[in-house]
Amino acid sequence: MDVAVIGASLTDFGEREAWVGALLSEAATACLADAGVAGETIDNLLVANMASGEFEGTTGVMNALAADIGATPADARRVGQTSASGGAGLVAAWESVASGRSEATLLVGGEKMTHLDTAESADVIASLTHPIEYKHGVTLPSFAGLAARAYLDRTDATRESLAAVAVKNHDNATHNPHAQFQKSVDIETVLSSPVVADPLRLYDFCPVTDGAAALLFCPVSVAREHAESFVRVAGVAGATDTHAVHERPDPTKLGAAVESGEQAFEMSGWQPDDIDVAELHDMATVLEPLQLEALGFADRGEGWRHALDGTTALDGALPVNPSGGLKARGHPLGATGVAQAVEIYWQLLGEAEGRQVDAQRGLTCNIGGFGNCVTTALLEVAE
Amino acid sequence: MDVAVIGASLTDFGEREAWVGALLSEAATACLADAGVAGETIDNLLVANMASGEFEGTTGVMNALAADIGATPADARRVGQTSASGGAGLVAAWESVASGRSEATLLVGGEKMTHLDTAESADVIASLTHPIEYKHGVTLPSFAGLAARAYLDRTDATRESLAAVAVKNHDNATHNPHAQFQKSVDIETVLSSPVVADPLRLYDFCPVTDGAAALLFCPVSVAREHAESFVRVAGVAGATDTHAVHERPDPTKLGAAVESGEQAFEMSGWQPDDIDVAELHDMATVLEPLQLEALGFADRGEGWRHALDGTTALDGALPVNPSGGLKARGHPLGATGVAQAVEIYWQLLGEAEGRQVDAQRGLTCNIGGFGNCVTTALLEVAE
Repeated sequence: MDVAVIGASLTDFGEREAWVGALLSEAATACLADAGVAGETIDNLLVANMASGEFEGTTGVMNALAADIGATPADARRVGQTSASGGAGLVAAWESVASGRSEATLLVGGEKMTHLDTAESADVIASLTHPIEYKHGVTLPSFAGLAARAYLDRTDATRESLAAVAVKNHDNATHNPHAQFQKSVDIETVLSSPVVADPLRLYDFCPVTDGAAALLFCPVSVAREHAESFVRVAGVAGATDTHAVHERPDPTKLGAAVESGEQAFEMSGWQPDDIDVAELHDMATVLEPLQLEALGFADRGEGWRHALDGTTALDGALPVNPSGGLKARGHPLGATGVAQAVEIYWQLLGEAEGRQVDAQRGLTCNIGGFGNCVTTALLEVAE
Repeated sequence: MDVAVIGASLTDFGEREAWVGALLSEAATACLADAGVAGETIDNLLVANMASGEFEGTTGVMNALAADIGATPADARRVGQTSASGGAGLVAAWESVASGRSEATLLVGGEKMTHLDTAESADVIASLTHPIEYKHGVTLPSFAGLAARAYLDRTDATRESLAAVAVKNHDNATHNPHAQFQKSVDIETVLSSPVVADPLRLYDFCPVTDGAAALLFCPVSVAREHAESFVRVAGVAGATDTHAVHERPDPTKLGAAVESGEQAFEMSGWQPDDIDVAELHDMATVLEPLQLEALGFADRGEGWRHALDGTTALDGALPVNPSGGLKARGHPLGATGVAQAVEIYWQLLGEAEGRQVDAQRGLTCNIGGFGNCVTTALLEVAE
């Protein structure tokens, strides 16, 4: 069964004075309002969240949300894939509708993180890595630093080309009222910010963020009755790479992004050339060029050129992270994969005021761990 | 697409000197061996787990498992629904195959709990309840005690009839080599054990358990090529009730069990009379008669008679919890819903040595929280 998306929402991202349950409810309520659908219409509720238990000692988030939005007795479950929980939610939501079990699946992704200090928060996040690597002190930022070093050594990429990713995504976020950082930064600021994991610096990394995002899925046949135009899920796929990053022959090759991208393109019948806009998982700047290469948007070792030469700017041939990306919109773990698809939804339906690009087809790529599991989704405007 | 199960496994349940990752791998490996399928055949891996982050500080369990069993680059995600995570896994696995996205989905449920003391463990479990109720000190055992008191007051049920559930399930577990408690208890022992939540006592409750269980799902068309007989998923449904238990007009009515049961029966075209064997969620003894009533196996207020009069014994008209149930097989949260279906799988295929009943069709009912979300699954032997 063909699967459609008929509603989308995003809370403001940043430091929020609200627990995860309130953030999920805020996004869910806004999404239902956006679609003009009542909570009681929902027959299936999926909550994408990495670690509400570890962050704030609550695990019944999906049951609470069903009650909050009046969706009881809808089925409700939680979907997790660490920092790609939102992407895993896209797969799960697609399956719920495509299997014929659901006519109205509400996917809500969210995370509340900023109440912990950075060390505590990093400890929760590090729980997703391989225990041996964790024990040796290798965190996600360290993996990014090591990969960036290898990338700079093995290709013609310059340090400036990575900073250009941060500059672009910060620029884009100045047009996104939901973004955590609605301010521009220049290359000098990025290159003079404190070193986090050499050669990467503070401004190469996404912040710690609170926020939630929601999408409403239904069969295309239902969407046609409901709205004049909507978004169709043309392809969606998830794939794993080695759990231990040190087992990979080349840390600059995101194998799970390659695999999930190939599967999603095969499912849709599209090629990378068909994509007009993309939201990529720029937890660290270096991940944006690595995903451009893994997904077929750039040759191997050449992805770094795109942020420098304007290809991935709002007015470029392939705008990437018009939302501001994880870098500047923010990265509330379980929300991110959903938020990426929300941005593409808005772009495809012409609702991305201030940062609108010309797009019929879009892609999202959400990464769990350091490429340990990746979900790629392909969306298009439909009638 | 019709969905089949072609392999099943259970680790030994009890106090295990192994972390959750090792338990999941043990169950997954045994399930693949049972089906005669290689890890690389798996294209989709679902891990049902409530709280590996809270219990032992690890959240990348699905990525680790994919690596352990050689399933990389299969998609992998975590499915949660608190103590019904396993049941939610059945829904998710069914959707993965029924949607056409997967030809080989391995569902592995597991939890490692016994390394924490009871108070710490109870604190993790209580994270699933409504925060207001939690704040007032109402835990899952208290809900069961309150419901048992109401049940004894409002019906003709006797205290002995609840103890009879524990006696029956302990008896059954003496024939289950994987069970945590392979010993019988008598009614006097149950009735003289320490009070936990009046009128319920220690022997009315399931233990804290480590363990894992696994099932291999594929399309029926694939199953037919693979094996002479297998199990077909005839119906599967999940439903929520109010998140705050105090909002329910009648705490002895498990509304989400009623709803998910009706949906599953409707999907299958079966009636309760068609069921030959059932695995119910006896976290507390009183829940077994309440589920018999909710699922249409007994009239309201009459379910307590079945354990007393032998209806639900191994040689009764409807054997319930031949495995020993949560009460005596044990209750490793995320494993339980999967373990229930493993028992039905074995019963349907005649592989339940020592406790085999005559069954063509079976039912499982897995409860999250105190009926906050319930999954019902209907299985039948097929060729």
